Amino acid sequence: MLTLYHCVGARSFRPLWMLEEIGLAYDLVMLPFPPRAHRKDYFAINPLGTIPAFRDGDTLMTESAAICEYLAARYSPGVLGVRPEEPDFGAYLNALHFGEATLTVPQTLVLRYGRFEAEERRLPQVVEDYARWFASRLKAFGAMLGDRPFAAAGRFTAADISVGYALMLADYAGLSDRLPDFARAYWAGLTQRPAYRRALEAEREAAHAQGVSPVPAPHGG
Amino acid sequence: MLTLYHCVGARSFRPLWMLEEIGLAYDLVMLPFPPRAHRKDYFAINPLGTIPAFRDGDTLMTESAAICEYLAARYSPGVLGVRPEEPDFGAYLNALHFGEATLTVPQTLVLRYGRFEAEERRLPQVVEDYARWFASRLKAFGAMLGDRPFAAAGRFTAADISVGYALMLADYAGLSDRLPDFARAYWAGLTQRPAYRRALEAEREAAHAQGVSPVPAPHGG
Repeated sequence: MLTLYHCVGARSFRPLWMLEEIGLAYDLVMLPFPPRAHRKDYFAINPLGTIPAFRDGDTLMTESAAICEYLAARYSPGVLGVRPEEPDFGAYLNALHFGEATLTVPQTLVLRYGRFEAEERRLPQVVEDYARWFASRLKAFGAMLGDRPFAAAGRFTAADISVGYALMLADYAGLSDRLPDFARAYWAGLTQRPAYRRALEAEREAAHAQGVSPVPAPHGG
Repeated sequence: MLTLYHCVGARSFRPLWMLEEIGLAYDLVMLPFPPRAHRKDYFAINPLGTIPAFRDGDTLMTESAAICEYLAARYSPGVLGVRPEEPDFGAYLNALHFGEATLTVPQTLVLRYGRFEAEERRLPQVVEDYARWFASRLKAFGAMLGDRPFAAAGRFTAADISVGYALMLADYAGLSDRLPDFARAYWAGLTQRPAYRRALEAEREAAHAQGVSPVPAPHGG
């Protein structure tokens, strides 16, 4: 049985989207954000207190891009996953890691020091430093992508979910006016996928059923 | 032919260590830090301007943990890599991503706002926020690891290189007094590996031969 612990809009949306793409059965447990403040019992599930946590039998995972990669390799090899023997295996892994470490983490700084911290602890310098970081790394990614519609292997894969979530977050983080044209077009294409819409719907329904606010509060972990 | 672009002490040390573990032939190109300031021609190799860049034929990669994973899956499956059908595949991927996104990125903030920025742009609040972040995430990782000597699969893998480099960086970032006991013991064990020592030696020799300062300057990309 697969279980995903999720906060509305947080990066746990990546594995939720993956689960819908593959069509696996799963339990979706919704938590108020941030769970480490509101749900101390969550530490028993995930010692980090961060979102996501994901369980598949004895396997516990906490890194959203890694969970997408895991689901792809275990349940969708050669389709949503890229196999090691495919020519684009390196590009696939690179985009999977890049979407989180290089494109998402800088936005968590923009959110933290621009919005989540108490007024007296906000730091406009950091907000601007990492808004620029995000924009420049994204622009360079566009140069590497060229006119290809997907991150790797000429098809939609888990790597597009990793990068795509970073673009979804940019809207919430107030960075959408810094998106280069290629990123707008790329993201607009991804949002047309039926599984993306099903994931949004599953999130909404689960939040309602479990009494959690449906307002997005990303910056998970 | 495999080519790695590296700055002394930067996170490109991860793939360098992997290459030595596997025993592959490679070209090591040393760059002054940061290359985007000192070697404008480097943008033609890596549009991001970050370190590392890695080439294997037509494949270009820029994320250090992804390169380790790639090398493991292509050249050392079931040994330094964990195969999808192994029970610890999820733990392996999780630690690979965690070592960079969760354990290394916070340290780059400590370095940036504590040391690399001009005096008037330094931010002690950020240094303290992310020194604490690093320590708390590392402690929780220790709880998940228990008394196992390696990150996954009961053997040394690419995931240990990903996490291990974060501990190597902690020393440089002045965070070694925040390391919990398990992390000191774990890192001490890793440094006994002959390939770790060969990687340090390869770095030193290449820096000397290519006229680059041997002083570590991590915080690559």
